[in-house]
Amino acid sequence: MELTTIKLVTIISEAILEERILHDLQQLGARGYSVGEVRGEGTRGVHASEWEGKSLRIETLVAPEVADKILQHLAAAYFPHFAVIAYTTDVQVVRGEKFRGQR
Amino acid sequence: MELTTIKLVTIISEAILEERILHDLQQLGARGYSVGEVRGEGTRGVHASEWEGKSLRIETLVAPEVADKILQHLAAAYFPHFAVIAYTTDVQVVRGEKFRGQR
Amino acid sequence: MELTTIKLVTIISEAILEERILHDLQQLGARGYSVGEVRGEGTRGVHASEWEGKSLRIETLVAPEVADKILQHLAAAYFPHFAVIAYTTDVQVVRGEKFRGQR
Repeated sequence: MELTTIKLVTIISEAILEERILHDLQQLGARGYSVGEVRGEGTRGVHASEWEGKSLRIETLVAPEVADKILQHLAAAYFPHFAVIAYTTDVQVVRGEKFRGQR
Repeated sequence: MELTTIKLVTIISEAILEERILHDLQQLGARGYSVGEVRGEGTRGVHASEWEGKSLRIETLVAPEVADKILQHLAAAYFPHFAVIAYTTDVQVVRGEKFRGQR
Repeated sequence: MELTTIKLVTIISEAILEERILHDLQQLGARGYSVGEVRGEGTRGVHASEWEGKSLRIETLVAPEVADKILQHLAAAYFPHFAVIAYTTDVQVVRGEKFRGQR
């Protein structure tokens, strides 16, 4: 079976940003997502424990170039002002083409 | 400390398939799993937003050959008819042998 | 955009151990975490299905040397007595320095 390596982008965010981030993901080329609830204590810059409480774990599978765009956008638009963490992971899927956006 | 690389298989599925998929995983050699609830909007083939609502995030740690069998089975049994997404990730564990099935 | 590879440590644990494990993570150098609820059926050693029920999925992003310490500690302190599973994954982040502990 032939597998394709694509990118899983995981975003841990304050719940209040859900709508904005999901809109951003779609604009940047993501074609699907899942959202789960987590509790968390995080860090922003050098300050630990700046927020505590209900957060969201947003995941989307995208092509590598879309993952780059998403990380770049999140870093510019949210990291300076909000408790948002984002990371990408290499994952293998059976059919890679369905995760490729059209933008 | 010696680490072993094994496979994490993650399945995002409509909630209604839980019992069938967990049964399949066990039959194919998985020896444990976890299930979390997520909300999602997905894509099946070229159609975006085909399903929206409560989904499950099923995870299992397995040997590489079991991961292959699981992906192959899911692709054949579910991808054509259901909103199921599956991917594998390389992960490192302390004791790899406990995740090896007997089939 | 320059990305840094760090380690995601994922711990699946009985809910009763939450406070102890979060304390351990902080002591070992983790600077943030998220906790989500999962249901699971697991394996401990050769016995399948030893526990079933509410579990936690604890995640933390840390430097590789902290990830090693965490796995080593969990293996020694919990694996012999509790239904705890832990694994690490390589992930890419925009700013790696904020996940480095000071211990």
